[in-house]
Amino acid sequence: VSETVPGKLSAAEIQATFDSSPFLGFLRLRVVALDHDAGTLTVTMPMRPELERRQGTGQFHGGPIAAFIDSVGDYAVGMAVGGGVPTINLRIDYLRPAVGSTLTGTARVRRAGRTVALVDVEVFDESQALVAVGRGTYSGQRG
Amino acid sequence: VSETVPGKLSAAEIQATFDSSPFLGFLRLRVVALDHDAGTLTVTMPMRPELERRQGTGQFHGGPIAAFIDSVGDYAVGMAVGGGVPTINLRIDYLRPAVGSTLTGTARVRRAGRTVALVDVEVFDESQALVAVGRGTYSGQRG
Amino acid sequence: VSETVPGKLSAAEIQATFDSSPFLGFLRLRVVALDHDAGTLTVTMPMRPELERRQGTGQFHGGPIAAFIDSVGDYAVGMAVGGGVPTINLRIDYLRPAVGSTLTGTARVRRAGRTVALVDVEVFDESQALVAVGRGTYSGQRG
Amino acid sequence: VSETVPGKLSAAEIQATFDSSPFLGFLRLRVVALDHDAGTLTVTMPMRPELERRQGTGQFHGGPIAAFIDSVGDYAVGMAVGGGVPTINLRIDYLRPAVGSTLTGTARVRRAGRTVALVDVEVFDESQALVAVGRGTYSGQRG
Repeated sequence: VSETVPGKLSAAEIQATFDSSPFLGFLRLRVVALDHDAGTLTVTMPMRPELERRQGTGQFHGGPIAAFIDSVGDYAVGMAVGGGVPTINLRIDYLRPAVGSTLTGTARVRRAGRTVALVDVEVFDESQALVAVGRGTYSGQRG
Repeated sequence: VSETVPGKLSAAEIQATFDSSPFLGFLRLRVVALDHDAGTLTVTMPMRPELERRQGTGQFHGGPIAAFIDSVGDYAVGMAVGGGVPTINLRIDYLRPAVGSTLTGTARVRRAGRTVALVDVEVFDESQALVAVGRGTYSGQRG
Repeated sequence: VSETVPGKLSAAEIQATFDSSPFLGFLRLRVVALDHDAGTLTVTMPMRPELERRQGTGQFHGGPIAAFIDSVGDYAVGMAVGGGVPTINLRIDYLRPAVGSTLTGTARVRRAGRTVALVDVEVFDESQALVAVGRGTYSGQRG
Repeated sequence: VSETVPGKLSAAEIQATFDSSPFLGFLRLRVVALDHDAGTLTVTMPMRPELERRQGTGQFHGGPIAAFIDSVGDYAVGMAVGGGVPTINLRIDYLRPAVGSTLTGTARVRRAGRTVALVDVEVFDESQALVAVGRGTYSGQRG
């Protein structure tokens, strides 16, 4: 995770952007891998008390999962254009309850256009079970 | 907001459910209107520092907006069946930046089936500008 | 249906475009109303043998309904910019079986941007039952 | 393509169902591969004059592509339960113009539940370019 490409964001730069956003900083997102050639980005989100669906379930609420998907998808596009991009729309499908201490989300750019980009995101829990998938259309340029 | 219908949730009961959820309590959702016959539910979400998109912008991050849409839609179905229902999938379209101290979301059930329900949600900011719309498929029964 | 606005399509011009498209001509789409100020367009699609879901059911197949939604939504944007626009993505929800001799689709532009537009489409059968809804993101400019 | 599994549809049985549907027969869909264990189904759709977007472009109209995606996704679920299933909703993203004499669609079941199933579909043209992707929620049982 030490790649540096002119005009593109490194893992450290994405991490700094996450950390400086009040909301993403609150979610404690952590960049764990990225590949500019493949257009893929992997990020983790740890459980914290405020993210629980119902007290004592140990399940992530669907809301933070939606936010997580949105953000990982956003920076899979954004890392190629030097900063976060506006989300145009997003579809999220929840497959099963998300439990455990950390979720891992991997985004893959399916089409990178000048005006719009399409990204797929998959979210796994610690047992590698697929808990949710997202598909988002983002602006192809920085917001 | 004082309606009581057997087997259905009153505004106070929905509010209590919101307050008891770690995540929804954190979002400080507030029920402001509901109509069981029309299948509509209106809820507000106030700004708080953790929800800001970028420090100093005064804009809500899209993540909490997605979570807000999901929850308002969920209880538009849930108020008719006595409790929250699983979200199957959700599409969110962001129309413009959401600024100000409070967002208002109104959900309307478009189809209430035994197995699945379809709900539309519209989110307005304080100037009554439409900032985002959501369309979700929920389970027709309590989770 | 006799409106003429410079740079915008009249009902007759949209009809001519439908008729000249091999696929839309095959679907026999007919423009019945439009309102440039409101951003609304209403079109009908009659049953024909090739559109039946299963022989003898009298039900429209979901495929032509998807195509119908896409096209009505497209020209709700296109009528303002002088011609059809590329569809970026489309969500369709099927609510109930669509029967009868004609479907009516009404599109409403929710946001008309320079790069992207958002459109809602509702489809009714002859008994005025809502059979399907669509929400599409289109390019804001001619394809 | 000669697999026979009790209670499940073989390729020949899916083909017979396609051929007996007025609309799918019109589209001339052809089953080319299926794998019950993997939950994948591959089908082709040839160009025919009625499917052209604009006369002389050689491009498939987006409407038949949507119908194609819907049907391939449907039978990826349906082949496991012995017949076609109701489509609940469908998202389609168009990536580039679809040209050539035949499109190939591959569906993969991402989650097969008793009440709902989630399916991803990818559509390629003859040059193996990805022209559209679909994601659909279907009933988990025969319609």
